[in-house]
Amino acid sequence: MEEISPGLENVYIKYTELTFIDGQKGIMRYRGYDINELAEKSSFEKVSYLMLFGKFPDDSELKNFQNKINSHLALDDYLKDILRAMPETSDSLGILQTLLSAKASKESNYKYTKENDGEKIPEILGSVLSMVANIYRLKSGNNIIDPEPGESYAETFLKACSGSADKNKISAMDSALILYMDHEIPASTTAALVTASTLSDMYSSLASAIAALRGPLHGGAAEGAYRQFLEIGEPENVNAWFENNILNGKRRLVGFGHRVYRTYDPRLKTFKKYADILSTTEEQKKILAIAKRLEEAGVKAFGSKGIYTNTDFYAGMVFNAIGFPVDMFTTLFGLSRISGILAHITEYVETQERLIRPRAIYRGSGERKYPE
Amino acid sequence: MEEISPGLENVYIKYTELTFIDGQKGIMRYRGYDINELAEKSSFEKVSYLMLFGKFPDDSELKNFQNKINSHLALDDYLKDILRAMPETSDSLGILQTLLSAKASKESNYKYTKENDGEKIPEILGSVLSMVANIYRLKSGNNIIDPEPGESYAETFLKACSGSADKNKISAMDSALILYMDHEIPASTTAALVTASTLSDMYSSLASAIAALRGPLHGGAAEGAYRQFLEIGEPENVNAWFENNILNGKRRLVGFGHRVYRTYDPRLKTFKKYADILSTTEEQKKILAIAKRLEEAGVKAFGSKGIYTNTDFYAGMVFNAIGFPVDMFTTLFGLSRISGILAHITEYVETQERLIRPRAIYRGSGERKYPE
Repeated sequence: MEEISPGLENVYIKYTELTFIDGQKGIMRYRGYDINELAEKSSFEKVSYLMLFGKFPDDSELKNFQNKINSHLALDDYLKDILRAMPETSDSLGILQTLLSAKASKESNYKYTKENDGEKIPEILGSVLSMVANIYRLKSGNNIIDPEPGESYAETFLKACSGSADKNKISAMDSALILYMDHEIPASTTAALVTASTLSDMYSSLASAIAALRGPLHGGAAEGAYRQFLEIGEPENVNAWFENNILNGKRRLVGFGHRVYRTYDPRLKTFKKYADILSTTEEQKKILAIAKRLEEAGVKAFGSKGIYTNTDFYAGMVFNAIGFPVDMFTTLFGLSRISGILAHITEYVETQERLIRPRAIYRGSGERKYPE
Repeated sequence: MEEISPGLENVYIKYTELTFIDGQKGIMRYRGYDINELAEKSSFEKVSYLMLFGKFPDDSELKNFQNKINSHLALDDYLKDILRAMPETSDSLGILQTLLSAKASKESNYKYTKENDGEKIPEILGSVLSMVANIYRLKSGNNIIDPEPGESYAETFLKACSGSADKNKISAMDSALILYMDHEIPASTTAALVTASTLSDMYSSLASAIAALRGPLHGGAAEGAYRQFLEIGEPENVNAWFENNILNGKRRLVGFGHRVYRTYDPRLKTFKKYADILSTTEEQKKILAIAKRLEEAGVKAFGSKGIYTNTDFYAGMVFNAIGFPVDMFTTLFGLSRISGILAHITEYVETQERLIRPRAIYRGSGERKYPE
């Protein structure tokens, strides 16, 4: 008798040359390069290129890639109309999913080839930057704009959002974009792979990924962790809150534990660094103090079970310090993930394309006659 | 050394009490009832209820379910604005994906419970009917309307599309909605399951399903088969066309073969019946004659390999005879599939909820130093 594979936990869906994760040792690399080193020394564009095309770009390849991205920053008029039509109660990520789907509606003839992909990918990166920046602008009561190219993707994005950005914030944004770019195949990337396996276009595949990312068990963790800190309110409340809510088993500690890791999430290091650097207001310092005490309590209670802090624990603080409100966190995560998902899709279609069509085990009623 | 499971072909993702398929014998049942019997004797509403809630509705349950569906036929104003904003070159299915995503953007607090699901499901069925009818109206140059409730879902839908519909067409539409309602877990339903496994809302899950359905390897087969007939043009061209395009291996015969079946697709029988009944114009009769000759050639050539006609071969003809143009076929397939996908999602979340998170096997570069 066949058995199901719950959550596909021990099922391998593809080969990959993209991301290596050692969950026991807490190691994560993109194409062999340590992610913290990439976050510190490289840029979103270079790492995206590395992931998507298999090598770092030389100077002229990089310039060309950036120019192509920048030539797609202007938002199509119909996307502007849709943005304006969205209800105020729509959440940012849902608007992104809507805009991606609207773009997809014009892609039904898309064919995956190295040449087409090489043009389509920078188009998408430019277009999604503009979508997310304008969603943020819309939500904060500002006008919709066509972003102006800056020195880097991170700079273009932050300037499009709010007109200016200092160096530390651009560095932090660039690092976040790199650290969140890929994480092998979580549910969102899996949804994108299933979609792309039908040879559905890239925008559709990204829209399914965003649809999965929206779920509270997936993309919402940075937001959830941050809301936890807000709820606790003061550093001296941490221990009592932890005892009353977590130790008694009433709630799960958000930002702790990960299906893949049995130790600290390796991405944590850089996020923590930026949380330290960028937390300058009294409120930010207080949140940081709460987070550190909570982390200590969590590790003490759960570390022996292999449950440690994950990256979402500190990511929200970094996004907040850059200047974003809580309900943008998951959308920023989505923005970061675009090139990783595209790299997985193109890798899948190019090297092992096969329609993803699992089975279910029927255990319902036997044959029945229709009740006349 | 672990191996990947290509296309998840032999992987069981869930238990189900919904659809039983015997691909060797060509049997398909919903909760134990033969699908052709359901298509002949039941209605879309009753079969949806059966699939979603585990039993046929009694008279008052049916009335209540229909009333709830009908109370959601009016399209939200923002969806009307989005419909009007969509470019003329957008395809119908992409517009549906966009509207579903726009609805999803207001669902971020959705919680799966029996009570919530019982309200949300008829809302979705009413809302999607209205979306698809208005997409059709928009594409055919008509105004956007709030559909008026008819006697049945099929009637409401056809009248919303074009003002009137005769009995045979309503019966055919009702049967098509039933026959296409579910097919265990093809790529579209898989994408929806992955999305729902993060506890993302129902509209998001449906949007991912539609994103996957868009792919040429999945939902486009009814359209592809029909375009084949148009290309052949005349019944007497069939044999030469078959020899030049299919037998020589240049192209794949669309509407033939299925991952699950090694014999005739059981749904074929009813679609064939309606193709016979509804093909009344000279053009329709010609297409039918082409299809029958092509089926004969296909079965002769491939039947011994277990490759037979599948349901998409005749479905397009039925949709065309009801009055729809080719580029609506996949969208009608999508409309039919909504309650099946919702039944799979709720079954998964209620009975075996587990985040779907497969793994990839890394076979890329070992550790590398960042090029300074």
